[in-house]
Amino acid sequence: MTPPRSPRPTLEQVAARAGVSRATVSRVVNGSESVDAGLADVVRRAVDELGYVPNPAARALMTRRVDTVALVAAEAPSRVFGDPFFAAVARGASQELARSGLHMVLSMVQTPEDRARLAAFLRGGHVDGALVISEHGDEDVVGAAVGAGIAVVVGGRPVTPHEGVASVDHDNVEGGRLAAQRLLDRGCRCVGTVAGPQDMSAGVDRLVGFTEALGARFDPALVEAGDFTTTGGGAAAERLLARAPGLDGLFVASDLMALGALGALRAGGRRVPEDVAVVGFDDASVAAVAAPPLTTVRQRTEVQGRLMAQLLLDGLGRTVADPLPELVSGDGAAGAGVVLPVELVVRDSA
Amino acid sequence: MTPPRSPRPTLEQVAARAGVSRATVSRVVNGSESVDAGLADVVRRAVDELGYVPNPAARALMTRRVDTVALVAAEAPSRVFGDPFFAAVARGASQELARSGLHMVLSMVQTPEDRARLAAFLRGGHVDGALVISEHGDEDVVGAAVGAGIAVVVGGRPVTPHEGVASVDHDNVEGGRLAAQRLLDRGCRCVGTVAGPQDMSAGVDRLVGFTEALGARFDPALVEAGDFTTTGGGAAAERLLARAPGLDGLFVASDLMALGALGALRAGGRRVPEDVAVVGFDDASVAAVAAPPLTTVRQRTEVQGRLMAQLLLDGLGRTVADPLPELVSGDGAAGAGVVLPVELVVRDSA
Repeated sequence: MTPPRSPRPTLEQVAARAGVSRATVSRVVNGSESVDAGLADVVRRAVDELGYVPNPAARALMTRRVDTVALVAAEAPSRVFGDPFFAAVARGASQELARSGLHMVLSMVQTPEDRARLAAFLRGGHVDGALVISEHGDEDVVGAAVGAGIAVVVGGRPVTPHEGVASVDHDNVEGGRLAAQRLLDRGCRCVGTVAGPQDMSAGVDRLVGFTEALGARFDPALVEAGDFTTTGGGAAAERLLARAPGLDGLFVASDLMALGALGALRAGGRRVPEDVAVVGFDDASVAAVAAPPLTTVRQRTEVQGRLMAQLLLDGLGRTVADPLPELVSGDGAAGAGVVLPVELVVRDSA
Repeated sequence: MTPPRSPRPTLEQVAARAGVSRATVSRVVNGSESVDAGLADVVRRAVDELGYVPNPAARALMTRRVDTVALVAAEAPSRVFGDPFFAAVARGASQELARSGLHMVLSMVQTPEDRARLAAFLRGGHVDGALVISEHGDEDVVGAAVGAGIAVVVGGRPVTPHEGVASVDHDNVEGGRLAAQRLLDRGCRCVGTVAGPQDMSAGVDRLVGFTEALGARFDPALVEAGDFTTTGGGAAAERLLARAPGLDGLFVASDLMALGALGALRAGGRRVPEDVAVVGFDDASVAAVAAPPLTTVRQRTEVQGRLMAQLLLDGLGRTVADPLPELVSGDGAAGAGVVLPVELVVRDSA
């Protein structure tokens, strides 16, 4: 008679015994070199003690190298295609992935249903990892990717920190400070801002820096949030002007929104910079050709995309063709956050 | 003692018993509703008689519905993000797919290496089907998708026809005719064109219609090909002006290129439409706000994306939420090509 089979130990049980995450067990079991050697030993001991055997079908489905990475943008297609930020990140990331032989697919997630479909796709073993950009506070897209047990790198400051997830952000707080300081230095006395969405770290951080630099001059009545689109920026600037006709300085937290604000100021009979000085954010290609050309805070979005891809490749144990200094310095190791510097670019608008 | 197990019956044996193809057995076994009810009964009888049990791992890998579709653009990210054509197709397709519960990922393919990586991804069972747009003659992206054994729908006139592949195009020949006729009707006598890329069906077909309508007035020296970008359109218009200073009518085969051409004409001291009348193509959102607003040929790109998705869903045996007339009429059945009408939109430029 065959003895009754004891239930097979699960990945979860191994993780609990070793005191690590499922993802870490999965990486060790599948021979990834990205796990610390000491930690890998602990995991292997737990595997041996429990007699854990990865289910071959599950393993084939879950851990097979697909040589494909998802770039996930938590935005609707109209935003993703309309904002040069996404094009630059996608260009940087896809070029970097291609150099290491990986294919990139872009997924745009807007509704809870979109998120559920994305989560199922990521869990299904169809990609080796995910780069997540444009995270909003109300949808845990990063959590969906982490929960799928794949490698994840976040663009921006993660709304909810997850263990072992690296991120690449720009110094948005410093950018907000630089913009406010420029307006103060010009002698502006009634300074407002069209802030970014307040459920996004970039929106929050740029406003924090702006508020800090203004100090006692900061007036909460001179803050209007926009949605990072030209139309939204124009509408927000209109509301500000209606409330504060004496406005003489304006920080607009993205160049696309600044284009809308310039239109609203023109429509309101204001000259830029004579009546109202304007500082944007991004140094998108439209900034230099705006009327007047925009003074703005430059971020290096394509480098951000490249570095995100490099951190992901590194986490997957893949060779990185031409590592950026930030990767070499190890600032972006699992769980760490790299913050890229920003700088003020002075043109005519302020 | 357990009796020796008889070898498990295979899918092939079921297919032979039922007198149907492997694919039909597979569809029935996996609960697809696309198989005729009577035929499905025959298959189920054969499954019961032989005691066929699908191998779970093989089944999971081979026939699993992934509920994801790839939108493949045979272009670099900079083109895909810079041209509203792609945004509109992506918006239409993704909305339509989402209504049927499917996720869409976008893949951009530029180099032969990109194509190889895409082919491996498509072969890997990571998507149920592919929508292919912006096909160029020198890269058989459609062939890569067809070769992967997945459902495929092409946007545009397929460069190389493949059996069973439906397509959704606009009537680009008629569009070229409408543009040329508009210029002739205005009395233009020296009519040139900035054509689209001649390795793309849209580029070829718009030039064919233009040539046909001009008849004896067609002068091959007044043709310059552009690359569907603003910069490329400007450079092509400059070359034309240098060669034919008496140019008084210009058909530019995309609105983005027409923006560049308007700049080149302005730089060359020409008034539009007084000195040179200009007709664009697309009716992109930039057309209405161009200086002067562009007379153009309108195509319904978002509808094209929707219909492509509907044809694919139909081919996958999925329910289409709100079928467009072209789907109902069956014009887009496997292997057929739907051609959507275009119309001239008259504004100030011609």
